[in-house]
Amino acid sequence: MKIVVDGMGGDNAPEAPVKGAVEAARELGAEDSIIIVGREDEVRKVLDESGYDGDKIEVLNASEVIETGEPPVKALRRKKDSSIVRGMELLKEGKGDAFVSAGSTGAVFAGSVMKLGRLKGIGRPALAAIYPVVGMEPSLLLDAGANAECKSEYLREFAIMGSIYMDKVLGVKDPTVGLVNNGTEENKGSALTKEAYQLIKNSDVNFVGNIETRELQNHAADVIVTDGFTGNAIVKLTEGIGLMVIREMKKRFLSSTKNKIGALLLKDQLLGIKKEFDYSEYGGAPILGIKYPVVKAHGSSDPQAFKQTILKAVPFVKGDVIGKITESLEAYEEAQVENSDETSDVSGQEK
Amino acid sequence: MKIVVDGMGGDNAPEAPVKGAVEAARELGAEDSIIIVGREDEVRKVLDESGYDGDKIEVLNASEVIETGEPPVKALRRKKDSSIVRGMELLKEGKGDAFVSAGSTGAVFAGSVMKLGRLKGIGRPALAAIYPVVGMEPSLLLDAGANAECKSEYLREFAIMGSIYMDKVLGVKDPTVGLVNNGTEENKGSALTKEAYQLIKNSDVNFVGNIETRELQNHAADVIVTDGFTGNAIVKLTEGIGLMVIREMKKRFLSSTKNKIGALLLKDQLLGIKKEFDYSEYGGAPILGIKYPVVKAHGSSDPQAFKQTILKAVPFVKGDVIGKITESLEAYEEAQVENSDETSDVSGQEK
Repeated sequence: MKIVVDGMGGDNAPEAPVKGAVEAARELGAEDSIIIVGREDEVRKVLDESGYDGDKIEVLNASEVIETGEPPVKALRRKKDSSIVRGMELLKEGKGDAFVSAGSTGAVFAGSVMKLGRLKGIGRPALAAIYPVVGMEPSLLLDAGANAECKSEYLREFAIMGSIYMDKVLGVKDPTVGLVNNGTEENKGSALTKEAYQLIKNSDVNFVGNIETRELQNHAADVIVTDGFTGNAIVKLTEGIGLMVIREMKKRFLSSTKNKIGALLLKDQLLGIKKEFDYSEYGGAPILGIKYPVVKAHGSSDPQAFKQTILKAVPFVKGDVIGKITESLEAYEEAQVENSDETSDVSGQEK
Repeated sequence: MKIVVDGMGGDNAPEAPVKGAVEAARELGAEDSIIIVGREDEVRKVLDESGYDGDKIEVLNASEVIETGEPPVKALRRKKDSSIVRGMELLKEGKGDAFVSAGSTGAVFAGSVMKLGRLKGIGRPALAAIYPVVGMEPSLLLDAGANAECKSEYLREFAIMGSIYMDKVLGVKDPTVGLVNNGTEENKGSALTKEAYQLIKNSDVNFVGNIETRELQNHAADVIVTDGFTGNAIVKLTEGIGLMVIREMKKRFLSSTKNKIGALLLKDQLLGIKKEFDYSEYGGAPILGIKYPVVKAHGSSDPQAFKQTILKAVPFVKGDVIGKITESLEAYEEAQVENSDETSDVSGQEK
């Protein structure tokens, strides 16, 4: 399989994606390789500097770059020779199997929907984020911000898509699914969460019910389902508190000689906490509900984070995540049709 | 003025509220005093143990207790001799000026609306939480969870009520107001936040625009406005991450002799961070938008937290927060009427 990497996406491009690709290439299987899309001269310069001389990396020129501040839809239409547009075209043309980009979240998401297309039966594709749980395995949270307004049906789809990705890519069998709510009881919440509770409960996932955000750092569930507005708030708040903890530790622990000695003795432990708060350690965020595998890497990804994200694209493709999601949607639609048939039968008998 | 304290509310009742009242009584002004409502024998026992012999504390017997798990409305109707119902009645009868309770949030909130009544012109009263910002002054966040579903108009009211409380009780002049959103640009967000942005922008508050949750620990604004579902998620997530940080520090810092020595040297600093994450240090959460001053203390409040919460009730009453909110609502209504008059004039001219 071929993994397409956006060489121009992210705060540290092209260095970070290209170096990450070089590191990932060393660990890929015999039949797997990478295509880096971006300004060829810039990409090749980093490749040369890195001393890579293998045959697992191709470079495809794309002269334009979509910047983070640009309105996504307009940028995608105008910049036809951008790394994001060209990269996605490779997937449609069958020349690539997965696309990894640390570019503008809006552009990568909008491009996924516009260029690659939604899966039949999916209301809204979601951005699924790896949610770090310090001292434990991470959860997968979706929607992490793509859909500020959601219907309950979307949340049911998020539960199914998240479960399949968690199983096939992150290797958690029969992953638990929790619904973010303002209380744990079944009857709690907004109209949206009450409806979603019933829909998810009746779906083929390992639903553990409502979870409060207080429990997220206790790994309340493997898959955390929520609307994109709340998901965005959760992910960014966690990030912000992580930064604050590091800021406060630095400030306090360097405030006297005694404290400095203490901090020195605890250095490894302090770095450990910092590292666990760090998103980039866990690979990227898949966009689920579209026809091809796309993974959004964090904008601040370093080569190590790119490497992880690129390598995670392998089970995304080989585990046939998208095929499994499609099957699950079809099975649900069939069950719905059967149920409505049964209902007609019953009403027929009653007549 | 008389502050009514629920002697039976919270995880540590009656010890914590009664001892907190004793400590607060020592700092109250000459004309101020406390009425503790609850099971008289239990309350008096703690009062005796505490050695209090002043004349600033009365006890009013109330034989029933509303438990945290009980459905609030039903409990309020059935338990007419509960400390919450009796306490609120004192306010209505003019025998008390403010009510402080660490009892069931649902019951205190529902009781405030049912027994004391909403202010005219207020769509929904809100629970305003002191939101701790580590290393800086706290913010006031509302709604912290009372209204899972909000209209944009409610958010405008939250902005106004929060600003007045922040000024009169927490002493922040011309407090900044921020709207929680998924991006900082004016056109970002859900239908709710887009509408609320315009309403708040056109209100008489110091609006700084949209804020992302990533910035909350940078004290993005003095008053944080959001719907009750998101507010609940923010407050509980912050609490959960605080607990996790303390758990991880303990685990890591006690994992070897070297680490233990380091932790010992940093003991004061570590306790400092822990303390700043602790809600109970900042007093309680006022319920704003009702006709009388009610403050919900955290369920796990200790005597110190009760003391702070009781003392904060003084400026709540003496700063005439409720009168100021009423004035602001009336001014807004008048402006609306004037605007609609102008509109009629214009359309009249056009004819």
